[in-house]
Amino acid sequence: MQATIERRPAENRAATTLTRTVSPSTNKDRVQEILGWYGSDNPGTLTNLARLLNHGRLGGTGKLVILPVDQGFEHGPARSFAPNPPAYDPRYHFELAIEAGCNAYAAPLGFLEAGARDFAGQLPLILKVNDHDALNDEKDPFQALTGSVQDALRLGCVGIGFTIYPGSTHRLEMYGQIRSYAEEAKKAGLAVVIWSYPRGSSLSKDGETGIDVCGYAAHIAAQLGAHIIKVKLPTAHIEQDVARKIYEKERIPIGTLAERVRHVVQCCFGGRRIAIFSGGPADATETVLEEIRAIHAGGGFGSIIGRNSFQRKKSDALKLLADIVDIYSKKNP
Amino acid sequence: MQATIERRPAENRAATTLTRTVSPSTNKDRVQEILGWYGSDNPGTLTNLARLLNHGRLGGTGKLVILPVDQGFEHGPARSFAPNPPAYDPRYHFELAIEAGCNAYAAPLGFLEAGARDFAGQLPLILKVNDHDALNDEKDPFQALTGSVQDALRLGCVGIGFTIYPGSTHRLEMYGQIRSYAEEAKKAGLAVVIWSYPRGSSLSKDGETGIDVCGYAAHIAAQLGAHIIKVKLPTAHIEQDVARKIYEKERIPIGTLAERVRHVVQCCFGGRRIAIFSGGPADATETVLEEIRAIHAGGGFGSIIGRNSFQRKKSDALKLLADIVDIYSKKNP
Amino acid sequence: MQATIERRPAENRAATTLTRTVSPSTNKDRVQEILGWYGSDNPGTLTNLARLLNHGRLGGTGKLVILPVDQGFEHGPARSFAPNPPAYDPRYHFELAIEAGCNAYAAPLGFLEAGARDFAGQLPLILKVNDHDALNDEKDPFQALTGSVQDALRLGCVGIGFTIYPGSTHRLEMYGQIRSYAEEAKKAGLAVVIWSYPRGSSLSKDGETGIDVCGYAAHIAAQLGAHIIKVKLPTAHIEQDVARKIYEKERIPIGTLAERVRHVVQCCFGGRRIAIFSGGPADATETVLEEIRAIHAGGGFGSIIGRNSFQRKKSDALKLLADIVDIYSKKNP
Amino acid sequence: MQATIERRPAENRAATTLTRTVSPSTNKDRVQEILGWYGSDNPGTLTNLARLLNHGRLGGTGKLVILPVDQGFEHGPARSFAPNPPAYDPRYHFELAIEAGCNAYAAPLGFLEAGARDFAGQLPLILKVNDHDALNDEKDPFQALTGSVQDALRLGCVGIGFTIYPGSTHRLEMYGQIRSYAEEAKKAGLAVVIWSYPRGSSLSKDGETGIDVCGYAAHIAAQLGAHIIKVKLPTAHIEQDVARKIYEKERIPIGTLAERVRHVVQCCFGGRRIAIFSGGPADATETVLEEIRAIHAGGGFGSIIGRNSFQRKKSDALKLLADIVDIYSKKNP
Amino acid sequence: MQATIERRPAENRAATTLTRTVSPSTNKDRVQEILGWYGSDNPGTLTNLARLLNHGRLGGTGKLVILPVDQGFEHGPARSFAPNPPAYDPRYHFELAIEAGCNAYAAPLGFLEAGARDFAGQLPLILKVNDHDALNDEKDPFQALTGSVQDALRLGCVGIGFTIYPGSTHRLEMYGQIRSYAEEAKKAGLAVVIWSYPRGSSLSKDGETGIDVCGYAAHIAAQLGAHIIKVKLPTAHIEQDVARKIYEKERIPIGTLAERVRHVVQCCFGGRRIAIFSGGPADATETVLEEIRAIHAGGGFGSIIGRNSFQRKKSDALKLLADIVDIYSKKNP
Repeated sequence: MQATIERRPAENRAATTLTRTVSPSTNKDRVQEILGWYGSDNPGTLTNLARLLNHGRLGGTGKLVILPVDQGFEHGPARSFAPNPPAYDPRYHFELAIEAGCNAYAAPLGFLEAGARDFAGQLPLILKVNDHDALNDEKDPFQALTGSVQDALRLGCVGIGFTIYPGSTHRLEMYGQIRSYAEEAKKAGLAVVIWSYPRGSSLSKDGETGIDVCGYAAHIAAQLGAHIIKVKLPTAHIEQDVARKIYEKERIPIGTLAERVRHVVQCCFGGRRIAIFSGGPADATETVLEEIRAIHAGGGFGSIIGRNSFQRKKSDALKLLADIVDIYSKKNP
Repeated sequence: MQATIERRPAENRAATTLTRTVSPSTNKDRVQEILGWYGSDNPGTLTNLARLLNHGRLGGTGKLVILPVDQGFEHGPARSFAPNPPAYDPRYHFELAIEAGCNAYAAPLGFLEAGARDFAGQLPLILKVNDHDALNDEKDPFQALTGSVQDALRLGCVGIGFTIYPGSTHRLEMYGQIRSYAEEAKKAGLAVVIWSYPRGSSLSKDGETGIDVCGYAAHIAAQLGAHIIKVKLPTAHIEQDVARKIYEKERIPIGTLAERVRHVVQCCFGGRRIAIFSGGPADATETVLEEIRAIHAGGGFGSIIGRNSFQRKKSDALKLLADIVDIYSKKNP
Repeated sequence: MQATIERRPAENRAATTLTRTVSPSTNKDRVQEILGWYGSDNPGTLTNLARLLNHGRLGGTGKLVILPVDQGFEHGPARSFAPNPPAYDPRYHFELAIEAGCNAYAAPLGFLEAGARDFAGQLPLILKVNDHDALNDEKDPFQALTGSVQDALRLGCVGIGFTIYPGSTHRLEMYGQIRSYAEEAKKAGLAVVIWSYPRGSSLSKDGETGIDVCGYAAHIAAQLGAHIIKVKLPTAHIEQDVARKIYEKERIPIGTLAERVRHVVQCCFGGRRIAIFSGGPADATETVLEEIRAIHAGGGFGSIIGRNSFQRKKSDALKLLADIVDIYSKKNP
Repeated sequence: MQATIERRPAENRAATTLTRTVSPSTNKDRVQEILGWYGSDNPGTLTNLARLLNHGRLGGTGKLVILPVDQGFEHGPARSFAPNPPAYDPRYHFELAIEAGCNAYAAPLGFLEAGARDFAGQLPLILKVNDHDALNDEKDPFQALTGSVQDALRLGCVGIGFTIYPGSTHRLEMYGQIRSYAEEAKKAGLAVVIWSYPRGSSLSKDGETGIDVCGYAAHIAAQLGAHIIKVKLPTAHIEQDVARKIYEKERIPIGTLAERVRHVVQCCFGGRRIAIFSGGPADATETVLEEIRAIHAGGGFGSIIGRNSFQRKKSDALKLLADIVDIYSKKNP
Repeated sequence: MQATIERRPAENRAATTLTRTVSPSTNKDRVQEILGWYGSDNPGTLTNLARLLNHGRLGGTGKLVILPVDQGFEHGPARSFAPNPPAYDPRYHFELAIEAGCNAYAAPLGFLEAGARDFAGQLPLILKVNDHDALNDEKDPFQALTGSVQDALRLGCVGIGFTIYPGSTHRLEMYGQIRSYAEEAKKAGLAVVIWSYPRGSSLSKDGETGIDVCGYAAHIAAQLGAHIIKVKLPTAHIEQDVARKIYEKERIPIGTLAERVRHVVQCCFGGRRIAIFSGGPADATETVLEEIRAIHAGGGFGSIIGRNSFQRKKSDALKLLADIVDIYSKKNP
């Protein structure tokens, strides 16, 4: 059930489509162009999307770097913050995101409540409205609802964040939950960000980041009405036999990371939804930057950098984030 | 538990009934006649049914060709769109349906949100409000709620689409869900389309398209209050022993595809509900057209053509859809 | 766990009570007398009960013959209607019930929606608000909610019908559902009819119609607030050992069908609730009439005749229903 | 896990506390004293509690005899009423409770609906809002919701009755249900009566009436906000090892029935909640009266007498209830 | 999966952070400083937090001693109150908390209802809105909802208390429940106290109080939006291998109880949430005081003292609580 496919650059029909759709433009035009993809949203939601796109050092480029800090909940506080103890303090992350010029900061209810007044209006916030902890190790994970659209509004957020686990037996219920949240959020003028993380008993460990599964998970998030889709960086592994046939027959280029990013972006409505990528566990700086270059080259819209930022000393984190922003600022990746 | 029954044309009592009920008429009269079957619906719902019936190249004939594109969600984006990459772009399907003169375009939330403003008023839309993905392979499938009646209204849709799986252990809950959706939709003046797809642990693979099961599934959809019922083309297989007795005793003609279509139409309130048929996987053109001729001959109200249209090059798809429309346009099949 | 008890007519204490309670009276008095049993209902509900009791050929007698047509949903369309194909058409059943002078017609949402306007005001309608199909064969059956009180109101019904399965592991949830439906229905002035059909893993096949179980099921329906209780005709089988002791000790007469009917009526609040009986599968005319005579002799309030009517040719059905009405019209059974 | 403890009268610390709390007083003072324990309830609820305490032959004594008739639902109609057939008629129980001078009559929806108008204002009514039938025999029983607070209000009841099964795996859900019912009832000025019947897979048969379990069950009902708590008469059996240690160490007197009643009363907030006891199956008159004397001697607030009253001839029942009332009327038990 | 780590005082980076954050101050300043951490709460909630912090003998110090009495529900009345029978009476606990000068009294619905009027305004109350009994012994425990935010308001409470069981398979549902309760409570100006007690099939017995699990559980409560977090005193046991790696690598000091308290406080947003500790079963006085000294030394905000207070004679309890208050009153632990 597992296979990889070599790169076949000559026949990249997908890339052609994508390039045509998402053409280079001036910065201001670029944000307007992106907002144009969301024709069914009300001006309130467009305003909040614009706030996100126009904030920080990448403001106006159509690229995004978001700081997410839900690892305290997801992995435990010591595992998350002991490597850099100032990060136990929720104010630390607001400051880090602001100083680094991130587009937004995303966190669970408690962390946002602990700083939203002190840093009000200083950077766009995204309330992560569901979360999961690591004290149980389920074959088919689910998430707890930990925040609401009303919470996001009272905290001044520009949007909500929601995790789905395609591949889990609980996925259908999760899709139903985000449907309900998204309807309420969009009515209230908020943006909707979906973390689409394939996990569950129907997937092999490799399958969770396999290119077919990753592209499928991104597409599901887009169909569920996400404005912004966050996925993990895909590998060249293909999980489903029925998918492998089409990847081989159509010679979809997935040999390089940039190609795989390009494919995932294509799976998000031919590039007409904002797809961003997470960096995974704390890693060597150069590895991270290499990945950012591939995301940029592949037409990805940006990164969500958690452990690689707040688990370093602040000065190191600011340096890394500056380097990442520099990469995304280049017009021609 | 499986058997087929030979054609016994002489005793087709059902056909007689049907012919009497659904008599030939002028086009305008035909739409009025069909609307007359829905005497319990409010003028709002009748208006939207009329929009559907009067739109496109088959407008006014009482026949329908609908373009459905939920395969990205149901099978994955690469399996659905890689054979024809422009189809990754949600605008492609609006354009295809408009250019082909389809009666309507049906899709999940994300795909409709991505084009509803650009193509507002250019063709009737149906919001598919529940969906299922193929990352898990369940014996007894269920669907996630992915859209709402309010979503359908804000997107300007004429109706909602809902899938039920008769035969699944989750079917009773699904029936309850569509009951609730349909009540809200009808109050809001929307039409209700039910995709009735038998699946689940109580059915053999052949049973999913067996004539007894298909007719039963169509009838359930009608009893649940569907205005339009979509089923797969039935085979001559009979799944249930208790059903086989009656098919044999009453000599119900099911030998040809046209006869089976006629029987399914009869199962939909003696022809007083709109029953349309799906084409299945992408197939040879002539096979598809042969099926359309059978549907027309059997008194079917039309087709819902997904993979056979958007997985071809656009020009090929337009040609095929034109041929299909031509068949349905013939007064005497 | 199974036994039958011989008739011991001498000690029929139950019959004595019943006779005293439900005394003969003039027709008009009789309906008023019956309405008097429902002192906690509002005038709206009494009005609809009166409509039911005063309609048709048995109007005013306090006896009822109701046409129910949910078999298309419960057993499938071909098994239900192929023996008499005009019955595929939902209008057929309205016409049959009107021509036969039935007190009411009961059917699921789809069938009622398909005729409620055409036949508005021509006979009392009962919306069956839950249903079950035969594509799955569960040990512990449940029903899907398929209609609402609001549906019943918009369709002009006099009441709702609801099936419970005492003996199923899902029964407690079903009781809770009808509680909620009944509260809303009574507030809206509708009558509540409960189909009480014992089924489930705790009962033997014989137990489903055993006299103890049937009487218990009828009593549960009465306690749940039903105005009209529909049960199957009971056999002399006794299912529960704890019940057998009391049937034997108290020498409850259950040897004849009339005695068993009398006992079931007694279980419905000593005859102060309307208990009617279903006829079962299509059968020989004389068998059916024999049963009707026993129901009448036992003080039953009437019959609900489905398959024995609509699965015959219309003329035959009208003849049979006329014969049934004649039996119930006799003052001294 | 099972043991009994001998009586150690010398160290009855609990009795001392109780005596001090519930001191003898004139009748009128006594009701006011009892109402004083319910300081968080609104005047509406106090009014209904006062109606209950001031009604019938024990009115004003602070003692209660309540007639409950849910056995038709719980055990079946023949097992309940065949020994005394007039009891099939719901009016019988209203009359019995009125003639016997009971404080109140408690029954499920159907039985109350069938008499509430005819006997309006003649005695306080308690609507049993959940019920269970005996057609399934579950290891971990649950109850169906069969009535609502709104039902209780429209029927003129003074309160609602609710059964919980401590020891059942469904108990937590039941606690949550009564929480919700009690909140609504108290807001509406109704009294809340909890039937606390330990049952379920975690208890031995003896454990269901063991003194530790009975006291615990009574305390849970009190903590859930019950105004009146109904438990079964406890035996000297101790079910839980952790409890036995404390019963032995503290030498809690549980050797006689009166002592056990006293202990249960103490478990109900040191006697500051009304605890009443049920009599169990129909039994010899003297046995019943002996139990009543023990309840009175132990400081119990009264009895709920079902099968021992309505399963006797009315004259016998009235005699027994008169004898019971006489016992509770004695100032010095 | 189990290990302990020696103390490595030299590298206590966490302690440094904490000291900086929670600096010594005058009493009045201290309460204002603490309120300053809750910048997202409305003035109503801050008012109730201030009431809690300013009440009793520790009022204004920023330290808390709370009397909780839910053991009657959680363990049974005899096990809880037989050692000190006056404690059966709910008024006893109000009096004890008032006389001892506690900051607040926390209890389930029944106990609070039984005294809230008599002691209105005499001390801050916390309504425990979920509870669990010990009649079933589940591998994965859950709690019943037993109170509401509306109950807390009508009883004059300053806040609600809610138990979560991290490690239980039901934990995600519990997180969702407190999310909903907390949203309603905060809107109504109430404080939210979370009892975070790790239990369930994924944890060893030692793991329930292991330092990694305890810190994680405290952090989850903080992320769920708790104003006050109650945990058990942690041991040096480490439950999760992935956690042990980081505790060892970062040399987190957990050798002494004070260090472990300091770590848990740090896990609560770097000390910017109020973390208090429970004392466990009734124990020798000196053991209890030793623990209090460690809590104070470690920067803990106080104690919740149940069984160690109400299971002693009142005079002994008052003495112990006075000693505890004395410890917490010391400026330099």
